[in-house]
Amino acid sequence: MFNERFKKQLDFILEIDKLKQIYRQNLVTGTKRNENDAEHSWHLAMMAILLSEYAAEQEINVLHVVKMVLIHDLVEIDAGDTFAYDEEGYQDKEEREQKAAHRLFNILPTDQAEEMMELWREFEAMETPEAGFAASLDRFQPLLLNYNTDGHTWKKPGVSSQKVFKRIEPARIQAPQIWEYATDLIETSVEKGMLKR
Amino acid sequence: MFNERFKKQLDFILEIDKLKQIYRQNLVTGTKRNENDAEHSWHLAMMAILLSEYAAEQEINVLHVVKMVLIHDLVEIDAGDTFAYDEEGYQDKEEREQKAAHRLFNILPTDQAEEMMELWREFEAMETPEAGFAASLDRFQPLLLNYNTDGHTWKKPGVSSQKVFKRIEPARIQAPQIWEYATDLIETSVEKGMLKR
Repeated sequence: MFNERFKKQLDFILEIDKLKQIYRQNLVTGTKRNENDAEHSWHLAMMAILLSEYAAEQEINVLHVVKMVLIHDLVEIDAGDTFAYDEEGYQDKEEREQKAAHRLFNILPTDQAEEMMELWREFEAMETPEAGFAASLDRFQPLLLNYNTDGHTWKKPGVSSQKVFKRIEPARIQAPQIWEYATDLIETSVEKGMLKR
Repeated sequence: MFNERFKKQLDFILEIDKLKQIYRQNLVTGTKRNENDAEHSWHLAMMAILLSEYAAEQEINVLHVVKMVLIHDLVEIDAGDTFAYDEEGYQDKEEREQKAAHRLFNILPTDQAEEMMELWREFEAMETPEAGFAASLDRFQPLLLNYNTDGHTWKKPGVSSQKVFKRIEPARIQAPQIWEYATDLIETSVEKGMLKR
């Protein structure tokens, strides 16, 4: 009664339920528990909608940004969350995530698998205005949460303000006002002793 | 240095972090823990993107549906989650949620507060094709998760297949293929003893 296409779509929708079990390094504000990727992706989508006026490119396609932030972490269902300041973990991150993308997106019908793969590649490459803005939000959101949870993640070994500055760098061109605000938060965090210089 | 508008937007973005602490009745598949509203909203946004071809209205505005599902539960930050089959809780649900909408959305600059309020009212009224499709997804998603967690929520007092059928009813017109599939799942669940007739 139900066609193969619908079945594949539902299989994918159930498979991605696992994103709710992939935990990130930062906390949810007001709690002692780590945020998961599904919550993070929802938060980014809300930011894409509310902050699109700060994208450097004024003719930005908001739906396209929203799609990218909603799907950008799906590969972590297989590849896991790689901590942004874990240099060792970053060495094989690309290979692990490519493999994950291939398995996951191909649960979908071919046209949608290709759309998801292209969205994910566009996000990773950070070359279009939409991908640049999406990446800026992806880097700004944990900064905002860390600032509001007494610098939780920043207290882990190997994190310094220099590295946090470097992480938010894409926003300097893609979303200057967000970048300026973020750099202010970093400076204040150093002054408050929440982040090592 | 930063204008009042940007400050209001960031205050709202931090305030809605609380959605991650509003727990629903259903479980995340493969776990024993309840799903929260932020995860649920992310899942609905993914479904809106992947299943829009099943909306009865073919010229549906996907971004509009996505916005509605992303924000539809924000009022629960103040009003809490009202169980779909809790008749007592439903008596003052509207009043509690109106009050919550007023407080929450007005953290934003006026133009965005109005946009959010209109999106939420449109979702609640279920009169436009976009709202009808968004509501169909909001009712189908927990059904899909319940079916895949051995009927977890359906085992609570007062739940029967008749009530679950009634709950999915808006999809009959707004997304017929989803409705047909959902009614199949309900029938199968009754046969398997996961849901009382």
